[in-house]
Formats: sequence, structure tokens, C-alpha cells
Amino acid sequence: MKTTIIVDKKNDKKNEKATAAAKKYAVKTAAKTTKNGKDTEKKYVSNITALLKNFPQWYTDIVLKTELCDYGPVKGTMVIRPYGFALWENIKNALDKQLKEREYQNSYFPMLIPSSFIEKEKQHVAGFAPELVTVTHVGTEALPEKLYVRPTSETIIGSMLSKWLQSYKELPMKLNQWCNVVRWEKTTRPFLRTSEFLWHEAHAVFADAKSAKKNALDDLYVYEKFMREYLALPVLIGQKSEKETFGGAEITYGVEAMMKDGKSLQVGTSHYLGQNFSKTFNIKFQDNQKTERFAYTTSVGCTTRLIGAIVMTHGDDRGLVLPPRVAPIQVIIVPVAQHKPGVLNTAENIKRTLLNLHYRVAIDDSDNMPGWKFNQWEMKGVPVRIEVGPRDIENNECQIFRRDTLTKTTIKLNQIERYIADLLENIQHTMLVNAEQNRDKHIKRAKNFTELKRAINAGNFVIAPWCNCTECEETIKTETNGVTTRVMPFDSVVEKDAVCVKCGKPAKVEIIFAKAY
Amino acid sequence: MKTTIIVDKKNDKKNEKATAAAKKYAVKTAAKTTKNGKDTEKKYVSNITALLKNFPQWYTDIVLKTELCDYGPVKGTMVIRPYGFALWENIKNALDKQLKEREYQNSYFPMLIPSSFIEKEKQHVAGFAPELVTVTHVGTEALPEKLYVRPTSETIIGSMLSKWLQSYKELPMKLNQWCNVVRWEKTTRPFLRTSEFLWHEAHAVFADAKSAKKNALDDLYVYEKFMREYLALPVLIGQKSEKETFGGAEITYGVEAMMKDGKSLQVGTSHYLGQNFSKTFNIKFQDNQKTERFAYTTSVGCTTRLIGAIVMTHGDDRGLVLPPRVAPIQVIIVPVAQHKPGVLNTAENIKRTLLNLHYRVAIDDSDNMPGWKFNQWEMKGVPVRIEVGPRDIENNECQIFRRDTLTKTTIKLNQIERYIADLLENIQHTMLVNAEQNRDKHIKRAKNFTELKRAINAGNFVIAPWCNCTECEETIKTETNGVTTRVMPFDSVVEKDAVCVKCGKPAKVEIIFAKAY
Repeated sequence: MKTTIIVDKKNDKKNEKATAAAKKYAVKTAAKTTKNGKDTEKKYVSNITALLKNFPQWYTDIVLKTELCDYGPVKGTMVIRPYGFALWENIKNALDKQLKEREYQNSYFPMLIPSSFIEKEKQHVAGFAPELVTVTHVGTEALPEKLYVRPTSETIIGSMLSKWLQSYKELPMKLNQWCNVVRWEKTTRPFLRTSEFLWHEAHAVFADAKSAKKNALDDLYVYEKFMREYLALPVLIGQKSEKETFGGAEITYGVEAMMKDGKSLQVGTSHYLGQNFSKTFNIKFQDNQKTERFAYTTSVGCTTRLIGAIVMTHGDDRGLVLPPRVAPIQVIIVPVAQHKPGVLNTAENIKRTLLNLHYRVAIDDSDNMPGWKFNQWEMKGVPVRIEVGPRDIENNECQIFRRDTLTKTTIKLNQIERYIADLLENIQHTMLVNAEQNRDKHIKRAKNFTELKRAINAGNFVIAPWCNCTECEETIKTETNGVTTRVMPFDSVVEKDAVCVKCGKPAKVEIIFAKAY
Repeated sequence: MKTTIIVDKKNDKKNEKATAAAKKYAVKTAAKTTKNGKDTEKKYVSNITALLKNFPQWYTDIVLKTELCDYGPVKGTMVIRPYGFALWENIKNALDKQLKEREYQNSYFPMLIPSSFIEKEKQHVAGFAPELVTVTHVGTEALPEKLYVRPTSETIIGSMLSKWLQSYKELPMKLNQWCNVVRWEKTTRPFLRTSEFLWHEAHAVFADAKSAKKNALDDLYVYEKFMREYLALPVLIGQKSEKETFGGAEITYGVEAMMKDGKSLQVGTSHYLGQNFSKTFNIKFQDNQKTERFAYTTSVGCTTRLIGAIVMTHGDDRGLVLPPRVAPIQVIIVPVAQHKPGVLNTAENIKRTLLNLHYRVAIDDSDNMPGWKFNQWEMKGVPVRIEVGPRDIENNECQIFRRDTLTKTTIKLNQIERYIADLLENIQHTMLVNAEQNRDKHIKRAKNFTELKRAINAGNFVIAPWCNCTECEETIKTETNGVTTRVMPFDSVVEKDAVCVKCGKPAKVEIIFAKAY
């Protein structure tokens, strides 16, 4: 079961190797600090609700107390504070680089879209209508046509593509933008669902269906790889059911991440739009026979919701645990007895050494007590803490604490460069491995509806055979108070004689069911 | 006159040295290609209206034909196309780094602001009311309070600061955001004035007036230095008149750039807001005596308008001329007779060499004729073109064309690394020097209104003594069809007995007058 779901075979070898090393390390170190997986030291918990006591409150406590964000003045809006934004910048910069390697070119399209554009594509408008923020006036003057604040930009980009595109020689045409979008949701939650959010949306145009379909899949694999390697999120990918397909798409692929409460968070989608938008917006090109043809398009996007995924995949009772590759601060240096001679100097020297190696490093030389600082930076999820005090200096040593396993080691000062390099890599991999183990522990098979309900209620994802009919999907959702289909893993095989988990008719596919955010 | 206006003394030495070198080079090379400053070769002009024939049309031709941007579907909006956006990204990344060095922390505040916030600050709302885009509905439901799309974020940031700020220990607090803002203007022009534009806005909070005032000035100097060094814009800085002060500010400093038509473009402003916003939004802190005090705030911003400034300061009849430090492509390699053996290989080798030195470099190996390619990349303003064909390869040479002076040189292939490094620096400085010479040629002194009108009509800025009364400023604007005050240079001195250029009463200050975008 476990191995069938992971799709990106190309990276398996590399990951396996790193993973094996990380596993060994994780097992070795975990024993030192935890008993039966529970934190044995309680003294440093900073007013964060216990994860097992109240998961939603734990989440809210973390995002607010670590100053990732705050509530905005308008209901459903959020302010992304500097610590949260630095995390987003690191995510954005890394993903932007990968999109550029895939030849997406950044650009910027207007935020205000004529209402007629959105209404042109019937399935599209059906998906967004109740969430559309509408502009009717400027100052006291009424506009000739009402405008919508973009919920996504397929329509306005489509209208421009139809103007720009001339010849097959210009294809593929690949555009990306990083921007804000607005979808007015009734129930909101910081990062997970806010009226306004930040995202990237990449749009591509092709001469034929095959290339477009391949592009939608390739984008999906880029997401999967990026989220695994940078965010340590062992995401599941696959095709969405017809009901869960994006309004206006022929195929929607989804990227699903499992949170620590067993719920799924959709962290990205990639759409094959066929000729739907090109026919609606007249996106045509001349082929090499000078015949005019409609193009095939795709779109793909992911959002600031990724921050929520990081919190709910890696966080614990002490607060955030951030993957080193995107952590705003990778190493925090805490001087102990900092007024004593040599302490701050040594701290500064360590900082300089690590800055030279391009790590994100800071010293906390505030007036607070060392214990308070330890709690603070643990809550903020900084992967590594270096403590250095007079006795350490005497011994040419420092203390190194890693946030993910809560373990402390003493090393020689002249070993810092090498040690930190290895350690950060190790933490990154350990976090992925732990998340992967947790994920695999919580994916269950179900043959019938009773098994499905039982497994979901116990905090699991369920993979089950399904008839591929919207009716069963809707019945399941109603009768379970919200369980939905997530994705159909690409390489799962429907067994002969398998029947739908709900209606008992012959199963056509296997699909993952879960409660979702 | 010339030297009194340049304020950033710190960099003068460095600039002077580079400038002297560049001047020599410019004079030496200019002779080869131009007669009396006019382009002697006409064959490659790509349907761009001549600059001297119709400046506004020349500008529009350039921004559209080089694909910097296009008109959006809603009146007054603009699409920033990949070439324009790559330019903006380079500007943004360089400035962002400098803002971070000044300890501004990036963050993100909601775009939709309760109307009551904007209306709280009377001068502020007066400045923006007719341009405010208003949201009243979501889907078909009316909102309880109407919202404005941000024209700037002082109010919403102020409301959050009042919640966050506790103690003097947290000061200064410095926040920045890169985002879109909307101001619904009646007359629009790509990049110069569009309904929606991209910008950064940096907001800072201080315990005392002196620190806040200093910060507003320091930010101004950062802009001046950045625009000179990166964009080759020899901007003028100084304080704005009371009439031109930002709604809600006590002092506004402006950054003005001279366009090739003698008009001014305001490319940045820095505001000392005193306690206006802190009193309106209750931004208080406890001082070290535990007394509650209102804070002092500043804000500073610049926009995608900078792209317009680059076009209109450096462009010519062939199209764009881009400063190397921000050009999306710094070096374009054009293979000549590219089907012949060795040509594309050599081009690839050159590209690799330059990529290793981290230059932004591309090869144009399209099917088009070399002459067409030359025109194309000249129009696009790429600073350096390298041509390489079979004969060059035989001689171990290549041809190097520089866009700013339109000169061509032959160099040995093994000299490329060193030559390109020097050349790009040289171009950057030459562009600044030329713009500076042009600027200084077009700043005139005026003692009375007749002189002022004559000088302005001849395409100049005018510096003149002024009584510092809004009445004279308004009369001048009316009687000249739009001449406005720009800035009061910091180090200009009002001569004894000088009288106002308009009313003849004793002058209190010297100020620059110009037509402006």
C-alpha cells in the first residue's frame, strides 16, 4: 500500500538513501527525549494548547503566538506578519526558480476583471459566483460594467492570449504570476481559507492536447517534488473526481497533504483545460499549414495555504517545527551569561562563520533569560539552536540543540561548519521521513462503508474502490458529515471483482477519501 | 547650479571617478556614430515614431512594441508582459535588498480596507476620495460596511500597529510590503498612471519626532542613490510644497526625474507623518517611565512608474536603452551564418562563459535574418550585442556592439570576460553621465514670470525664488496650463533681496517648477 502511492520515481533513489540515513538517526535520537512518542519535558510549553487536546485551537495558538499572522480588520482577512512572510518568501523564491526552469515567464495581469468575462464560461462562473467580490462604483460614480476582483485569472489571461497569439511558432506560451486573489468564504481560518490570499498561477498554451496534458502532469510532479524536498511534505497526488474538478477544466490533478489530525489539506491543483477557455476566449493560432486552430491550455496554482500545511504537518506542543530549507532563521545563537568576557565575541564569530556559508543565522542577545530565549525560539520552530557560554568557551565547545528531535549535542567550535551543514540536511530529511511514516500509518484500506467510516473517524485517510459516480460521492459526504474524495492515485490498481465502497456496484477506480480543510 | 542640486555627497567621489572615465569614453565614441546628436543611420528603425516628432506617441510605441506591456480590457488598466516584468523584478530585487539592509521587514496587509478607516483621516480621504474603488457586494449579498480597495495602506497598517505596539523596546518598528494598489485615474498612460499599479510601501514607527524625520530623509537618500546607481536616473530630491504634500503628512519629500521632453516624473515620495496617523489610529507605546505616548510615523513608496522613467530618460529613435544593472538581458549573442560549422558552438561557448560570471545572457538562434535580429534587440534596449560568424571564428574574434553609443568594436574571443565586465560598467556610467548632462542643460534660472514661462516652454525645468504661498503656485499653474512646483532642493540658498517669481514679494525659498506627468 505505502509504496504504490508515491509517484515520483525519478527521485526515489536519492530520497531512499537520504531517508535511510535519516531514519537511523531519528530512531537513535528519539529514544533520548521522548517516551512512547510523548514529550517528557513540559516546562517550556508557551501557553500553546496541547495538540491532542484541541487541534484547531493548537493551530490558532501557533499561528498567532509565533507571529506568523494576525486577523485583519475585515472578517475573513489576514495580515501576514514578518515571520510568516519571510517563510512565504523562501517558499516563493524556491518555487519561482523551478517555474522559470520550466520556462514559465513572470508577468502581471489586472486584478479587476469585467464581469462578462467570468460569466462567459458557464462552469467557471458556477464555481465562483457566490464568492465574487464585486466593484460597482469608483468614488461616487457608477461604473459602466461591474467588475470582479479576480478569484483566479484564466479569463483575463485568456482574453489577452487571444490578442497576442498568432503562430504555432510562438507555442508553447507559458506565463506565471504571483499575486493576490479574493474568494469571499463564509468560514475562514488563517492561511487555510482566507478571503484574500497570495498565490502563484501559471498558465500555458499548446498546439495540441497531448502536449497540454503532459504539461499539466509535469507541473503536478514539480509540485510533488518541491513540497517533498523543500517543505518536507509527503504529499499524495492523483486525479480529482468529476465533482471535485475545477470549473472549466477537463481534468484536475490534486496535491493532498495529511495533517496531524488525519484531515487532508489540498495544497495545489493542476488543470488540463482542453479547449474550453480557448473556445470561449478565442485563443487561436495558425498552424504550419496556415490553418487557424484553437489552442489547448493548462493552469496550475498553489497558495499561502502551504504555510498552514507546514504548521499542521510538523508542529508539536512546543510550537512550530520548520523545515531548514525554508525556515526564515535556520540557526539561532543564544549566548549564555552574555555579559561575561568572550561570550558575545564567540557568538559573533560563529555567526560570521555561518553567514559566510550563506546560512540564515541570528544571535539573540536580548535582555531576556536564556531559558526564556530557548522557549521562544523553539516555539518559533528554528531548526537549530547553538548555545555558547563561558564554560563552553573554556572547552572550545558549544551546545547544539535540534528542534525536530529535541536533542542536544556538544561539539568542538572548530567543527561547526561541517556539523551544521550535515545537521540541517539531516533535519530536513528526518522531518520528511517522520511525516511519511505518520502518513503511511494513517492510510487504511476499506472494502465497505462501515470500514470506511470507522477508519476515517479514527483519523485516517481511506483508499477504497469506487464506482466513479457523483451520486455515491455525495451520499458518502452527507452520511459522514463531510468526507470527500481527494485523489485517484495514478498507480493504484482496481482488483478484479472489487466493488464500490458505497453502492456495491463494480468498482471502476480506487480513490482516497478523507475529511478535508 | 549643477552641483548644488546633487545631494548624496557620500557617493560623489566614487561617481566622479567613474563619471570622468565614462565621459571620456562617451565623447570618443559618440563622434563615430552621430552627427550633431542625430542618428545618422536610419535603416533599422522599427516603426517607432521619431522621438522629436511626437514624444507621447514615441513613448507609447516603445512600451507596446518592445512588449513591456499592453492595455488591459478595463479602461485604464495595464498588463505587464514578461519583458516588462523581468525589468520590474530586477528593480524590485535590488531595492528590496536595500530596504532589508535598512531593517524594513516584509509583510502583507489585506487589500480591502473598511471605508471608515480611510474616512477617519480627513486630509487623507480628501486626497483619495474620487479615485477610491468601492466594494459593496459579494455575490448577490450586500456587505455590512463598504470596503475600499487600498490606494495606499497607512490606515490599515496603522490599525494593526495600534494592536501590536506595546513598549518603546519594540521601536523602531519597520514594515514593508510589495503589492498592488488601485487609484482610479481619469487620464491614464502605461506605467506612468494606471488604475492599478505595483509598488512597495514601507512604513515605520518611532518613539520621537527626530528619529522619524531622520528616517524619512534617509529613505529619500536611499531612493536617490538607488535610482542613480541602478537605473542611471540623475533624480532631483527635496521637500514638496504644502499644496503637493501627501494627505495626512507633515512633510513630503519628492524624487523627480527629468524626461527627454523636459517634463518631470515624480518617481518616489517619502513622508514624515508626525503623529497624524498615530493619533487617528491610536498607535501608542509605553516609554521607559511607563508613560503612554503616541508614536511618530513615516511612509515611503515607489512604483512600476520607474519603468516609464527609464524609457523616457534613456530611450531613443531605435527604442529602449536599458541600464545594464536592471536589463532583463544584458548581453544578446547573435550568430551570423549560424548554419555554418562552428558558429553555434562558438556562440554557446561565449554564453556559457558569461553565464558563469552570472550575467543575464541569451542567444538568438531563431530563423530570422541577422539584420532583423539586430534591429529587434536594439529596439528591446539590450545593452550589449555580440555578433559571431565564420570569419570572426577564423580570426578568433567577435564583434561587440553597445546599445547606448551605437558603436561596434572587434575583440579577441579570449578577451571577452574582462571586456564585457568593463563594458557593462562603462555603459551604466555613461548612461548616468549623459542623462545628467541632459538634465543640467535643461535646468534654468528664472527671476520673473516671463523668464519662467519662456524657459518651461523651451522644455526646461526652472529653479526660481518663491514666496512659499499656495496662491502663487495655483496662479502659475493656471496661467501656464499646468506648471507645478516639484521640490525645494535642500542646499539651494535664497539670495538676499530675491523676490517671488510670480508675486514679487520677498522670496522665502527656491523651488523647481516644471510641467509634470
